[in-house]
Amino acid sequence: MSAIENCDYLAIDGEFTGLDSGDGGHAAQFDTPAERYNKLRYGATDFLLIQFGMCTFTAVEREHKYIARPYNFYIFPRPFNKFAPDRRFLCQSSSIDFLIAQGFDFNKLFKEGISYLTPEQETKLKAELDRKHDEIKKLSSPDSNNCNGSSVQIVPVPEDQKSFLNNICERITNYLEGEDAQPLIIPPCNAFQRKLIYQTVIEKFPHVHLETKTGEKRERYMSVSKTKNADDRLKKEQEKQALEKMELDLEVGFSKVIRAITKSGKLVVGHNMFLDVVHIINQFHSSLPEELEGFKLLVKTVLPRLVDTKLMASTPPIQEHIKYSSLDELRQTLRGSPFTPAEVVTADGFNLYDDGGGSSHEAGYDAFVTGTCFATMLNFLGRARNSSNHFTLPCSSLVEPFINKLFLMRIADIPYLNLNGPDLEGSRDHVFHVTFPKEWKQSDLHSLFQPYGNVQISWLTDTTCYVALFKKEVAKIALKSLSQTSGPCHVVSYAFHHCNKNLRWSAATPMPSPTVSIVKRKLVTTTTDSDAPPHKVKRHSFPTECPPIPEEDEITDHVSSSLNEGSKSTSGDGKKTEVGKDKMFEESEVW
Amino acid sequence: MSAIENCDYLAIDGEFTGLDSGDGGHAAQFDTPAERYNKLRYGATDFLLIQFGMCTFTAVEREHKYIARPYNFYIFPRPFNKFAPDRRFLCQSSSIDFLIAQGFDFNKLFKEGISYLTPEQETKLKAELDRKHDEIKKLSSPDSNNCNGSSVQIVPVPEDQKSFLNNICERITNYLEGEDAQPLIIPPCNAFQRKLIYQTVIEKFPHVHLETKTGEKRERYMSVSKTKNADDRLKKEQEKQALEKMELDLEVGFSKVIRAITKSGKLVVGHNMFLDVVHIINQFHSSLPEELEGFKLLVKTVLPRLVDTKLMASTPPIQEHIKYSSLDELRQTLRGSPFTPAEVVTADGFNLYDDGGGSSHEAGYDAFVTGTCFATMLNFLGRARNSSNHFTLPCSSLVEPFINKLFLMRIADIPYLNLNGPDLEGSRDHVFHVTFPKEWKQSDLHSLFQPYGNVQISWLTDTTCYVALFKKEVAKIALKSLSQTSGPCHVVSYAFHHCNKNLRWSAATPMPSPTVSIVKRKLVTTTTDSDAPPHKVKRHSFPTECPPIPEEDEITDHVSSSLNEGSKSTSGDGKKTEVGKDKMFEESEVW
Repeated sequence: MSAIENCDYLAIDGEFTGLDSGDGGHAAQFDTPAERYNKLRYGATDFLLIQFGMCTFTAVEREHKYIARPYNFYIFPRPFNKFAPDRRFLCQSSSIDFLIAQGFDFNKLFKEGISYLTPEQETKLKAELDRKHDEIKKLSSPDSNNCNGSSVQIVPVPEDQKSFLNNICERITNYLEGEDAQPLIIPPCNAFQRKLIYQTVIEKFPHVHLETKTGEKRERYMSVSKTKNADDRLKKEQEKQALEKMELDLEVGFSKVIRAITKSGKLVVGHNMFLDVVHIINQFHSSLPEELEGFKLLVKTVLPRLVDTKLMASTPPIQEHIKYSSLDELRQTLRGSPFTPAEVVTADGFNLYDDGGGSSHEAGYDAFVTGTCFATMLNFLGRARNSSNHFTLPCSSLVEPFINKLFLMRIADIPYLNLNGPDLEGSRDHVFHVTFPKEWKQSDLHSLFQPYGNVQISWLTDTTCYVALFKKEVAKIALKSLSQTSGPCHVVSYAFHHCNKNLRWSAATPMPSPTVSIVKRKLVTTTTDSDAPPHKVKRHSFPTECPPIPEEDEITDHVSSSLNEGSKSTSGDGKKTEVGKDKMFEESEVW
Repeated sequence: MSAIENCDYLAIDGEFTGLDSGDGGHAAQFDTPAERYNKLRYGATDFLLIQFGMCTFTAVEREHKYIARPYNFYIFPRPFNKFAPDRRFLCQSSSIDFLIAQGFDFNKLFKEGISYLTPEQETKLKAELDRKHDEIKKLSSPDSNNCNGSSVQIVPVPEDQKSFLNNICERITNYLEGEDAQPLIIPPCNAFQRKLIYQTVIEKFPHVHLETKTGEKRERYMSVSKTKNADDRLKKEQEKQALEKMELDLEVGFSKVIRAITKSGKLVVGHNMFLDVVHIINQFHSSLPEELEGFKLLVKTVLPRLVDTKLMASTPPIQEHIKYSSLDELRQTLRGSPFTPAEVVTADGFNLYDDGGGSSHEAGYDAFVTGTCFATMLNFLGRARNSSNHFTLPCSSLVEPFINKLFLMRIADIPYLNLNGPDLEGSRDHVFHVTFPKEWKQSDLHSLFQPYGNVQISWLTDTTCYVALFKKEVAKIALKSLSQTSGPCHVVSYAFHHCNKNLRWSAATPMPSPTVSIVKRKLVTTTTDSDAPPHKVKRHSFPTECPPIPEEDEITDHVSSSLNEGSKSTSGDGKKTEVGKDKMFEESEVW
């Protein structure tokens, strides 16, 4: 925690059990920021953040360098007692396969992963614990058998349990008469039996202390120990209760790191960090609001100052020198001219990633790389302003334009989500929403729009997509023409589609008569891979087996691959070795 | 597979990523068989079977012994290529925690787990592969550029990719001119680029063979190799395609074991195997029918002869000697009088579990134990019929009464699901369906029914439950009386509730006026643990975080614990050390 307190900024990165549940739809080219948020929200609610990388950077100004302290946390919500939430989470087999190929240690995750609780969960569990302690107090007090409403109910002992209880009492009597100083262990029995034992022993043996413990194999057993007198017993009980409170405190676990980051108000840097932020809020702070505006407010209370290095790399003047902005490619590009790599040394005891020894896709290493890229780019911006500036601190005003703007992948004309205010609005006059038969392939759509030049297709489902014209000037003619023919498909303007969709969402309002057009066109029946619709979105219920998301292959098309760039990674950012996988938004207009 | 062919019977057991998704509701005391099936169906669709234990038993009749061959399969649906299903599956953190505590190796699961495909998936993937091969054939043929509908579409090369392609072509030219016999590796690039490379190379270099390969870190790259002439290239392509077909065949993987069991028609033994059977059908054969009758038919085509050892242990004459029928407790009981443990030796190379060296909750070991228990119980039945019978083969008529009957946990009066015909119907005249305020605890319900003697409560949601009277003879009076008062709760007969529920399910029929009663009763406000409603069923959508299912604790009640017995295990059977956890249905009437 002191590392957070004493740093100048920190970088973060997460790894997840999956990215795309198929429920919320895939990220698409013409998503509005609110649509994109909702797609990520679905994923964050279903999947789990299982590794959190954090790297603190402390400037040594006179030496023009940073001291880095990278941390790599395995995160797993172990249900530590019966009150703790027993979470259900989704896994995507391609993500799991990807992580295991990168050396992710799942046994370590499940055995040693740090647990966490949101503030709300913590409060609730504390109340439960207090209630339990209160009850034990009442049960132990001599007037516990009175019948007023505030006392504890004594369960009548069923016939078939009497011999069992007598046997236990006999063993306790022998134990108390004997010399054994060790506690007497009662073999595991069920919860009801434990309750019966508890109330019987409390009544019959005022001087023994009873405790339920959990064994290594998760079995629950009771331990009986001798006490000198009522006071000694009370003391033992108090010790046990203090221990339980400590245990609960421990279970807040990783959430404390997030709380410390919040408290510090430090600058938090991430690469393509929108998904990370959504997961962090959901898992360690509170459930995600449905509305984007609510989310923006929430983020600012938890992570008040954010910078996305992918946005920096995609903004002039840096953008001019960056061909591909995936983290790995950015790291490599920033090593050469015109950049000067920032000097970053790891603190003693943190030299895991020196000499490039880190492994990509380990969250701690990725956080280290992200923070280093940030420093290099910041120094570059400083030198661009004043060539004698060789070291620019993160408190520089040069950082301000990037504060609280999260990179929006694959949205050509809205490069970022603006947490500090309203979002940019892209022109969508040249974009159409097309509904077509299930059998249609990409080539059918290309044929349909052929008279209007090259188009960009952004799949929504297996029967709908957006089509954007490159020649924006022919948009009006195209819409007019496509509405004068009839056929198996259905073309409307982007604006009309959105207006309609919002109406459908807001209420069962009667729909305005659409300015649509039924287009007739010969169905081309070639079924090449390049034509396969890449996205089959299932919105109903919970699909255990989603339709295959096509991955890169020699005969898959550009658009589908750019849409799917995240599908093989598990951190939401295409940091892999694929050239062009991670093209910047400015460039993606080209095709 | 020959082990299956040559055995007299085989035993199976599964481990799962979770048991209770909260979606379908928890198993309850008065479920009908169809209700229970649907609850299990939800779980099987969400969670994954990740370990399959199988143990074949071959009788050596003259030596009165069996030779056992236990197998332990880790099962994981690796998405082996872009056509393969990328499955999403749910995990329950308590189940994962339980498995890891038993020594389950998740790294091995994800790294080495065997994949599987249902027959339908296999057929689909075969068709995809054929289509791809067909396309390559067309692309390679000289007339691939003609414009008729059956040919492959050539993608125009975008401006920004031209220099990239030229560079690749140059490298290939150099490679062809050089002496290097090894294939030329083109660094990983995106799918669109690979497609461009493919079509360009095919056209420009008729004598090279191109292949896309997947690297260790799941990156996709192309490999270019020299061929002597068109024939040689064709041969290389055919070799590659044959390999791809083999690969697909390999991916059918574990499903082949199930298919071999089906084909053998051998007797399959399991302990409390209903959940295992539901998972096996869903994962390796086909999706689960909504109707129980459809499921029964399906099971018989996949696993034609089943015996459930938990049902055997819960049926006279064996039942008289079995106090607790969890697998572990059954195993221990069957070691002593009046039973004679069957002699089972493991075959050479299969002696993992000799000398009790197995670890409980490893599926292979549990299958071994289950099969051994079956042999012991069968011998006991044989001796009970004729005391000189020391060895009874599984083909004995003594097995017949148990064939295709699956034990139904916690249903007092319907001990088994009958796959061979209609199910038993229990009398429910003494059972009421109660709807009550959310704040109500168990004690409130006990108070409500106090005038009618002891009751058994079976929670459905946090505001509904079934209440069964022990004094069946007062049922009529109770219903009449409870309907003459008014208050916050709502009591109807079991029959009325079911009739209503089915109506609600079948159509939006107007409901008959209920013969209900509004009961007034003082709200008792003690909030002891024993009173906490143990089941809060959320039916809406997909809960990532279900309400905590109370586990055994000293102050939880008998009923809730018996309802939850499976919640800490991951094989659906309470095989653990909890005394009474796994009480037989005959006994559960007692409380």
